[in-house]
Amino acid sequence: MQRYFVPDNQFTNSEVQITGDDAHHIRRVMRMSESDPILCVNSHGEGYRCLIQKIEEHKVTAVICSRLEESPELPVQLVLAQGIPKGDKFDTIVQKATECGAYAFLPFHAARSIASWPSDKVAKKLARLHRIAKEAAEQSHRLHLPEIYQPMDLQELIAFGNNFDWKMVAYEETAKQGEQKRLPTLLQQMRAGERLLAVIGPEGGLTADEAASLEANGFVLCGLGPRILRTETASISLLSFVSYHFELLNE
Amino acid sequence: MQRYFVPDNQFTNSEVQITGDDAHHIRRVMRMSESDPILCVNSHGEGYRCLIQKIEEHKVTAVICSRLEESPELPVQLVLAQGIPKGDKFDTIVQKATECGAYAFLPFHAARSIASWPSDKVAKKLARLHRIAKEAAEQSHRLHLPEIYQPMDLQELIAFGNNFDWKMVAYEETAKQGEQKRLPTLLQQMRAGERLLAVIGPEGGLTADEAASLEANGFVLCGLGPRILRTETASISLLSFVSYHFELLNE
Repeated sequence: MQRYFVPDNQFTNSEVQITGDDAHHIRRVMRMSESDPILCVNSHGEGYRCLIQKIEEHKVTAVICSRLEESPELPVQLVLAQGIPKGDKFDTIVQKATECGAYAFLPFHAARSIASWPSDKVAKKLARLHRIAKEAAEQSHRLHLPEIYQPMDLQELIAFGNNFDWKMVAYEETAKQGEQKRLPTLLQQMRAGERLLAVIGPEGGLTADEAASLEANGFVLCGLGPRILRTETASISLLSFVSYHFELLNE
Repeated sequence: MQRYFVPDNQFTNSEVQITGDDAHHIRRVMRMSESDPILCVNSHGEGYRCLIQKIEEHKVTAVICSRLEESPELPVQLVLAQGIPKGDKFDTIVQKATECGAYAFLPFHAARSIASWPSDKVAKKLARLHRIAKEAAEQSHRLHLPEIYQPMDLQELIAFGNNFDWKMVAYEETAKQGEQKRLPTLLQQMRAGERLLAVIGPEGGLTADEAASLEANGFVLCGLGPRILRTETASISLLSFVSYHFELLNE
């Protein structure tokens, strides 16, 4: 069933108003008609099965039928702090990691980030990533719409880490030393509902200084396995490890 | 250390001759000099630390110093039978799944494959995918160079499955029913060195008929978790599940 993230103020107890791009999507892309079923999700991640009642030029009205009980969300919240990569790689990362269950994204300026986000372009970049996250969340049947945080530098990232139960860094040098046990050990200690801040470097990886600063502030340096992964592959693999651990193995 | 897959007949007991694109890569892209270290890998997945001895116009000679003992290969062989997807998605799949440890790739014509590979274009497509696999294998520090098999139809794929210890299908309808236990159950029964044939559908997924035919022939239908993954994400997630199971959790 096609799903739409709808602002809370467009919900009443009995119906939902869908406007903007989503109304266009219903009319023009999906070519839906009255009585077609859709799923509407509010900002609290609550999903409602609805039937379309009226399709107008810029507004679709749907009647709420029932609440969705099952949740497709990862039982832990993983916020991906991603060293800003080159070109459109962040688009790929947000799309794929949203499919894999990421809770939110935090772009950070790493020492080896070649691309920079000038302050006058940040709003536009975040809006674009937000749109990609929304489409991927709808496509993958998520109930939570991942947020894209304002970009941070390393010190801000470290301070932000104080809000989390668990903090880790995917660190290639650790992988090379064959230390693969730290991530499963960390996941075995995590409980449902807890929050994990996971740091992944840009293309060239994190510098030894960055890794040392993060480790000194309580971030666990974890290998992701014996092969060297590209930065955009690392985020998908990490989320898949977490999914396997919490959703498949320990279901 | 930069690594190169070199044909066996270019190895002697004491040295390696590197030619073609790889010689160009050493000279022009990496701009290496005499005495620089490289890693040369033969067709048996044996890696040798070498030092460059001589750089000529179209040939680089390197002296073998020592054999690499540790292996970055997945302990099980996963052959990815991928329903042929649209556009350049197979490129992405081969690149990322090679990083994640895929043993080989088998393109197959699925009922919902929109793209088809006309027989006069197959050789060119396989050559392109082979090149992508080689670059990704080198970049991710693999010792095994994944092969790209000739495309098959469903009946050929089923017959080909007889060569495997284990056979599975990533099946979305199974995921929707919340059946996530089958994959970890299968992996728990697998032993190092065994071979798994894993089938992933194209963009629209496999049809119910295809899934039923595969299941009737011993392929286990497995969910990959509660979220709906794009075809190119499914392959990376599946390999990551296998990596987590065999390399991180059970190291």
